[in-house]
Amino acid sequence: MTKKEILVLEDLLGSNKKIAADIREKLSQKGILTVNLMSSPGAGKTTLLESIAEHLTPDHKMAVIEGDIETERDAERIRAKGIPAWQIITGGACHLEAKMVGKLLPEIPPDLDFLFIENVGNLVCPASYDLGENIRCVLLSTPEGDDKPKKYPKAFTTSDWLIITKTDLVPPVPFDIQRAIKEAQEVNPSLKTFTVSALKGKGVEELVGQLISALKKLRKDNA
Amino acid sequence: MTKKEILVLEDLLGSNKKIAADIREKLSQKGILTVNLMSSPGAGKTTLLESIAEHLTPDHKMAVIEGDIETERDAERIRAKGIPAWQIITGGACHLEAKMVGKLLPEIPPDLDFLFIENVGNLVCPASYDLGENIRCVLLSTPEGDDKPKKYPKAFTTSDWLIITKTDLVPPVPFDIQRAIKEAQEVNPSLKTFTVSALKGKGVEELVGQLISALKKLRKDNA
Repeated sequence: MTKKEILVLEDLLGSNKKIAADIREKLSQKGILTVNLMSSPGAGKTTLLESIAEHLTPDHKMAVIEGDIETERDAERIRAKGIPAWQIITGGACHLEAKMVGKLLPEIPPDLDFLFIENVGNLVCPASYDLGENIRCVLLSTPEGDDKPKKYPKAFTTSDWLIITKTDLVPPVPFDIQRAIKEAQEVNPSLKTFTVSALKGKGVEELVGQLISALKKLRKDNA
Repeated sequence: MTKKEILVLEDLLGSNKKIAADIREKLSQKGILTVNLMSSPGAGKTTLLESIAEHLTPDHKMAVIEGDIETERDAERIRAKGIPAWQIITGGACHLEAKMVGKLLPEIPPDLDFLFIENVGNLVCPASYDLGENIRCVLLSTPEGDDKPKKYPKAFTTSDWLIITKTDLVPPVPFDIQRAIKEAQEVNPSLKTFTVSALKGKGVEELVGQLISALKKLRKDNA
């Protein structure tokens, strides 16, 4: 990168950080737990959210912000489950930024428990942009291969949780779950890990239990 | 984007375009067909190259430039097949640029038939950077879902060939090959399509046949 490019990027990241901190403070004070989901395209973010919705509602209230380059398809899938969803169409941009989320804040119902943000499908660029979340999750689907944490480290070093998805495809898909977890924890020792098959409903209950615990902790810290 | 950000990006893309045109001219004049492979992480670019190598060699000479954010793993896999490979480690950058390829030109053997460039695993950003290729391929693996062409259109509008990979996983993976092809061709009517399972060796022979035809055409145009 040229010096000019680096300066522009630093400006952008600095301003994003401030907006994100403001979003986190506002939502946390309302007792809303915000979760940012990052992954490659097609790793199963929307399918996981559909499955989470089945476990969380009606006892808890959730909403989803969908980030996509084009189409409103993901928001439509979430709305079909009776969950409020807003679609951000980036029109080419490869990641969400805090200012895009910030613009939606006035529309977020104040009595919400969970706000999920589904990032643009991209295992690289979204990792550089804090969106004001309390928990950042990286999803790794088994067909992508167990060698990804060291090849795409930033998504793993900046995340709190690793969710290995599509475990029902192993075998025939050659994916060593223990190898993937070991490699991810070498990159980020504090990463909490989950394994799920959202299509088969496996592992989602445990994940939802941890989301509810995190919500309780947030509200206790607020009190 | 701010006006300053847009100007920096325009500079970058303009300069990339010139370098790419120079690379294409130099390699084409040597009779080397250059192919840029783009896809999401884990869509099977390296596995496809391993399978192509088995079909192309020893009758043809091929080499590979590998682009990754970190690690030399993909180049090692290609070298294990007896194929020369250079690893570009971008150190965080989400795509290859023509200048990175240009630096390797002095090392490319002049008697090569095919030069493959495996881009960073990312279905978004690489689509904006011409690398000097003759043929741009986008890979879409069946576990990613058949709804991707309209969600990530630029990778499909800028490509010459679409290669649907991991067809052996359908079923159980819910992927409608005809839907994916139809949608991709709505986005780009001139897209040539292939379906392969590189692990099972299915469809690769036809793809290799088309590569050899394209090489012959390049050399005929040169003569």
